[in-house]
Amino acid sequence: MEASGSLKFLQKTILTSIFFGIVGISVNQANSSPPPITKEEIKKASRIYFDRCAGCHGMLRKGATGPALTPENLKKKHLNTEAIKSFIYYGTAGGMPDWGKQGVLTKEEINLLARFLQHPPPPPPLLTWEQIKKSWKVYIPVEKRVKAPQNKNWRNFFGVILRDVGKVAIVDGTTKKLISIVNTGFAVHILRTSASGRYMYSIGRDGKATVIDLWMKKPDKVAEVKVCYDARSIDTSKYKGYEDKYAVVGCYWPPAFVVLKGDDLKPITRHVTSDYYYDTKDFVREARVASIVSSHYDPLWVLNIKEAGQVWLVDYSKIDKGSIKIDMIDAERYLHDGGWDLSKRYFLVAANMRNKIVVIDTKEKKLAAIVDVGTKPHPGRGANIDHPKYGPLWCTGHIGENRIACIGTDPEKHKKYAWKVAKWIKMPGVGGGNLFIKTHPKSKWLLADRPLNPDKDLQRSIFVYDKYTFKLVKTLKIPKNIPGRAVHEEYSSDGSEFWISVWGKKDQPTAILVYDDKTLKLKKVIKGDWVRTPTGKFNVTNTMEDIY
Amino acid sequence: MEASGSLKFLQKTILTSIFFGIVGISVNQANSSPPPITKEEIKKASRIYFDRCAGCHGMLRKGATGPALTPENLKKKHLNTEAIKSFIYYGTAGGMPDWGKQGVLTKEEINLLARFLQHPPPPPPLLTWEQIKKSWKVYIPVEKRVKAPQNKNWRNFFGVILRDVGKVAIVDGTTKKLISIVNTGFAVHILRTSASGRYMYSIGRDGKATVIDLWMKKPDKVAEVKVCYDARSIDTSKYKGYEDKYAVVGCYWPPAFVVLKGDDLKPITRHVTSDYYYDTKDFVREARVASIVSSHYDPLWVLNIKEAGQVWLVDYSKIDKGSIKIDMIDAERYLHDGGWDLSKRYFLVAANMRNKIVVIDTKEKKLAAIVDVGTKPHPGRGANIDHPKYGPLWCTGHIGENRIACIGTDPEKHKKYAWKVAKWIKMPGVGGGNLFIKTHPKSKWLLADRPLNPDKDLQRSIFVYDKYTFKLVKTLKIPKNIPGRAVHEEYSSDGSEFWISVWGKKDQPTAILVYDDKTLKLKKVIKGDWVRTPTGKFNVTNTMEDIY
Repeated sequence: MEASGSLKFLQKTILTSIFFGIVGISVNQANSSPPPITKEEIKKASRIYFDRCAGCHGMLRKGATGPALTPENLKKKHLNTEAIKSFIYYGTAGGMPDWGKQGVLTKEEINLLARFLQHPPPPPPLLTWEQIKKSWKVYIPVEKRVKAPQNKNWRNFFGVILRDVGKVAIVDGTTKKLISIVNTGFAVHILRTSASGRYMYSIGRDGKATVIDLWMKKPDKVAEVKVCYDARSIDTSKYKGYEDKYAVVGCYWPPAFVVLKGDDLKPITRHVTSDYYYDTKDFVREARVASIVSSHYDPLWVLNIKEAGQVWLVDYSKIDKGSIKIDMIDAERYLHDGGWDLSKRYFLVAANMRNKIVVIDTKEKKLAAIVDVGTKPHPGRGANIDHPKYGPLWCTGHIGENRIACIGTDPEKHKKYAWKVAKWIKMPGVGGGNLFIKTHPKSKWLLADRPLNPDKDLQRSIFVYDKYTFKLVKTLKIPKNIPGRAVHEEYSSDGSEFWISVWGKKDQPTAILVYDDKTLKLKKVIKGDWVRTPTGKFNVTNTMEDIY
Repeated sequence: MEASGSLKFLQKTILTSIFFGIVGISVNQANSSPPPITKEEIKKASRIYFDRCAGCHGMLRKGATGPALTPENLKKKHLNTEAIKSFIYYGTAGGMPDWGKQGVLTKEEINLLARFLQHPPPPPPLLTWEQIKKSWKVYIPVEKRVKAPQNKNWRNFFGVILRDVGKVAIVDGTTKKLISIVNTGFAVHILRTSASGRYMYSIGRDGKATVIDLWMKKPDKVAEVKVCYDARSIDTSKYKGYEDKYAVVGCYWPPAFVVLKGDDLKPITRHVTSDYYYDTKDFVREARVASIVSSHYDPLWVLNIKEAGQVWLVDYSKIDKGSIKIDMIDAERYLHDGGWDLSKRYFLVAANMRNKIVVIDTKEKKLAAIVDVGTKPHPGRGANIDHPKYGPLWCTGHIGENRIACIGTDPEKHKKYAWKVAKWIKMPGVGGGNLFIKTHPKSKWLLADRPLNPDKDLQRSIFVYDKYTFKLVKTLKIPKNIPGRAVHEEYSSDGSEFWISVWGKKDQPTAILVYDDKTLKLKKVIKGDWVRTPTGKFNVTNTMEDIY
């Protein structure tokens, strides 16, 4: 099979180069054979690659957040099996995890991957519309659903992602009691709510979208559908007149967005996101939807097309008439996630490999600015501050360094600070590792985690800054008896409390910590056998109204 | 090589089917080997396939106007080398040309193609932006061009496509004198003019765009660029404030549209047109731009995406700001060409394999109607009639039958006739074969050709109808001493004359016939050694103002 693989590559190369006499394509690949690999091994390696590598390097291995891993590229860099194994085992300072050292992958698996990468990537399958429709399941039809909320606190419910066990917990934010655990499947990436807040949506890394009805006595999934092989984003129609009408999923593979009926996830339509890179204008088949947000002020979704470096403003108001409108805006590579400014006119998104924040004016539907920030910005949805001096600020932390950048977002009344970093906030310790920052209009604080910092102490800390003076007020520490890292902050709907996840391993329960926002005292530790690998927490009201 | 081809297919099939456990993909291809073919033969066959087959069957052979020609599909239909040869030699009644019988392909070439088709299609090359930029040539920079028109009749010039010799003739419509012959390269498909009329653009089937400056004493190409491997359409920005600013090319391969600077063709940007079929929602990589028209009333181009069955309204007003807006409207398959109604609000386009005309409301940016017409409508840009009873009508002829369909286009004042065939016009003789119809606001006639009809007499006839009574008034015949078929009608800018091409073989000059519109008398025969394979003729004023 390996001989045939080599022949295949040679043949393809020759055909490509002779077609219309195109020249300059290297055929030296044929001079050395990649290391042997069996069919069974390819199958196994494909699975591991998808789970651990494709997110950063792409299904087609053309590179994105991580470098290209095509056989040609590895050869050009003179990387053989032993060298590749070393990268996978030890990781890199640039952000490649130490899969071997961490114990996530065995030596045998690493050896397998190292050989696998020297063969051309197997063509990833397409997902037919028929397959999507077959996967669509409605557990409770709309007409059989409850007519009114069955829990008076539902607007203060928290959806908690239990990432590695493929579940979502619904926790009452008022009583702190577990209300329901919903089985959503493999590695949930994010949650969103519908405009009314009634429906909560999850999207798994396996491309499965699930809708949970929060009005039920015991909220449960009422429908699900698998619309991609790999996905990271979901949102819903929030504009007046379209509340709860549509959901949209952003796929990694196949590269596309898929529109679903909001209440029962019936597949409606989809469009391809493959396009040309905004800058080189060369073709990128694997142009993935990194994230989506939904406007309250227009019938539009903001889709961030990672590799192409384009922001797509998708107008959903004429989907019923068989038409969809897309403003394709050239921005920067590689787009990741982002959020709204305070006015919700501007959308700010990280171009995380270029250390920039892209600002899109959704009113004028154009690029407003590109702002230089620090190394590998990771805003999540960012944090908004209404500052007496700088005016409205939108802040992001960084994976690659220990600073938070707060960008002025008011080009009219605070022009001096607009579309530049008005304020840098230095965090203690060496290195970045910040994943999420958060605040709430009623809180005085800006909160920041450091779960990806190599320092164990920093990993277990939440840094609390005064959001007006930018001074470090307090460092919250996870109680010693709870193992894991502190990750992701979320406020209760009235802003009086905030919650922190303790992110551990899936074979051991951890906890969710609830702090009083006024006193910064640990008020409650939510525990239980179910609290495994909690990560993102989404308060219904805050998610519904985009409060952050 | 054939064994490796088979192995390659088997390997690909296996990899595809094991990936994520997708099943149901046939592997029986491996049970029989395709007939032998050498590398040299593949190269030669690829070239012939591109020239003669790809237009209808697609570069990836997935089918469009013609059926799919993948090895799997041929196998499913039990077509072996001998059977395939027979199809290529004799053609079919469904529209497949008789390449062998006509003498276009030799028996050896047909044998080669029949074997080639049983192998997987070679991956067509992508065209890099670098390659496009390298192909860009400015012969006369904008600042060195003449400042005023050097010929007083330039607005009545005709651009005449000399198709098989790869040239465009510029003929003075007033004096009927040849002004210039411009070498544009392989098989020019259409011509368009800029909003001011000064620039005339040609697009070749080889994807080469050329701009001719009609203000020059001897009009010549002032710039060119090859933006695709295969193309069929070009147009320019015609909206107020954007006159002559941009040109846009619709590619067949790679499937895309490319925006150029209007006066010197500098490449600006491009976007992929691959998407999902509007109906099945399955992926179509080869979703080709069949045709383009430009609105005078909005800054938009109408792009017809053939395979996907979508009409894209592309707003070019923010290209300078790095943004392009596309209204993607689900329509019907497979889109071909079309034109504006009298009001220029509605755009009507043929879905030629579904025997429909799609009506797009460019004001509301939505599908207005889908109208049933006859077999294989081929409107060109259609013909508009302001009729006392039916109101405004837009008419199309058909390749597949001997009728012209006139559709009512005024849903407000003539609702009864709107978006249906208000009037059928029966043409004499058996079978269709009509390619172009034409009229002019100042003419009483509706003209129709029959070049694709098998009957030699009909091929050489132009049918003249009274455009108000729809009665056949006269049948014009090509003079006996001029060999060839009558094809394509075009009016002079004042509507007092119309021109007909005599379409012959490239080794023999033919003629262009000029008729007086009042008397229907042959007024002038434009002859000369240069008149070889004349097809489309584009009067500057009529093309500039979309008069048809």
